[in-house]
Amino acid sequence: MKCVIMANGEYGKVEEYKAVAKEADLVFCADGGANYAYKAGIKPWCIVGDMDSIGPEVKDFYQSLGVIWRKYPRNKDFTDTQLALALAEEKGAREIIFLGTLGGRLDHALSNLYAGMEYVKRGVKIKHYAPSYVVYLTGDKLEIEGKEGDIVSLLALSDKVQGVWIEGFEYPLSNADLEKGNPYAISNVLKASRAYIKVGTGVLAVIHYHQG
Amino acid sequence: MKCVIMANGEYGKVEEYKAVAKEADLVFCADGGANYAYKAGIKPWCIVGDMDSIGPEVKDFYQSLGVIWRKYPRNKDFTDTQLALALAEEKGAREIIFLGTLGGRLDHALSNLYAGMEYVKRGVKIKHYAPSYVVYLTGDKLEIEGKEGDIVSLLALSDKVQGVWIEGFEYPLSNADLEKGNPYAISNVLKASRAYIKVGTGVLAVIHYHQG
Repeated sequence: MKCVIMANGEYGKVEEYKAVAKEADLVFCADGGANYAYKAGIKPWCIVGDMDSIGPEVKDFYQSLGVIWRKYPRNKDFTDTQLALALAEEKGAREIIFLGTLGGRLDHALSNLYAGMEYVKRGVKIKHYAPSYVVYLTGDKLEIEGKEGDIVSLLALSDKVQGVWIEGFEYPLSNADLEKGNPYAISNVLKASRAYIKVGTGVLAVIHYHQG
Repeated sequence: MKCVIMANGEYGKVEEYKAVAKEADLVFCADGGANYAYKAGIKPWCIVGDMDSIGPEVKDFYQSLGVIWRKYPRNKDFTDTQLALALAEEKGAREIIFLGTLGGRLDHALSNLYAGMEYVKRGVKIKHYAPSYVVYLTGDKLEIEGKEGDIVSLLALSDKVQGVWIEGFEYPLSNADLEKGNPYAISNVLKASRAYIKVGTGVLAVIHYHQG
């Protein structure tokens, strides 16, 4: 099952996310993420969080549509994104696409990025989507599609990522070890419209910039 | 010794960095970082990198001033920031302040952030400075100054950060373990103008947002 989680970050043109949300079986909004769903005309299945960021008009609208609410206290030990993630997995999600997670405050971007790591280890596919780039988290195999010349950076998210093989790139890697402290696989380039990545151990972030 | 490294990222109003650069014993520019130094009227001691981003006018100007150049091939295994960091440590830096490292492309921001981790383990103080926020990396003790009410987030950069004590915050931590996959110490709040952080093992990012 494929789920979309909409966070309360920066979206740019909100309409550009509509097609991605349509592909999902269920859409979750993390608190103020609902404001963006509203603007984009996306109906979430559930809205999760402490509800300190959602607009009153948006709240009324989605309540009238019967959207499910999961309200948590403000002084909680989990971020709204974490709560939405846990709920998505509980509902059976095997693939999760995040929207609006990476463009805003750096602490939010990092915590959103890191929040998926444990899920990746359990085999859940995680992707953060923005119109000009996509960030995949992988601890196993990944196939990406793009255009020759696209820039793709590989970054260790766990302390070490070992046994990395990549195919379809200008600078190939074969059984390479990537370490956070030595981030050398930045700005690799696609040589074909399809590329393959395989990871032995650890969690890798694959950041794919689309052209034009 | 205190060094400033200017990266080729986003700066906003470049004049706001001038005072920070003035405090440094040596200023290094990572490639296109020199363009921002030029705009801000800062004279670097050395310009490092593959020199594919520096403007010709800037190059001529700094050459006429006798600024040192360290040119590396384009297809290198290190980022310009890493090269500048290594050089700064070679010159004896015990404190390094990065400018323009975090505002631009996500892969650059992450690799810039991660590049300092090994240095922190060797006791070098690392700080990323932007006008509205500052990111400290610490693996030991840290004292920060601010205003009551400032938001400060604590995020594990290494897989685990253990034995974290904090003082002067609304939500105190006492011998806490922080994990990347469970980023719960987001948006803590300063209770005083001075706060203290102590880390047992691992590398912690402390993200301090300034008010107004």
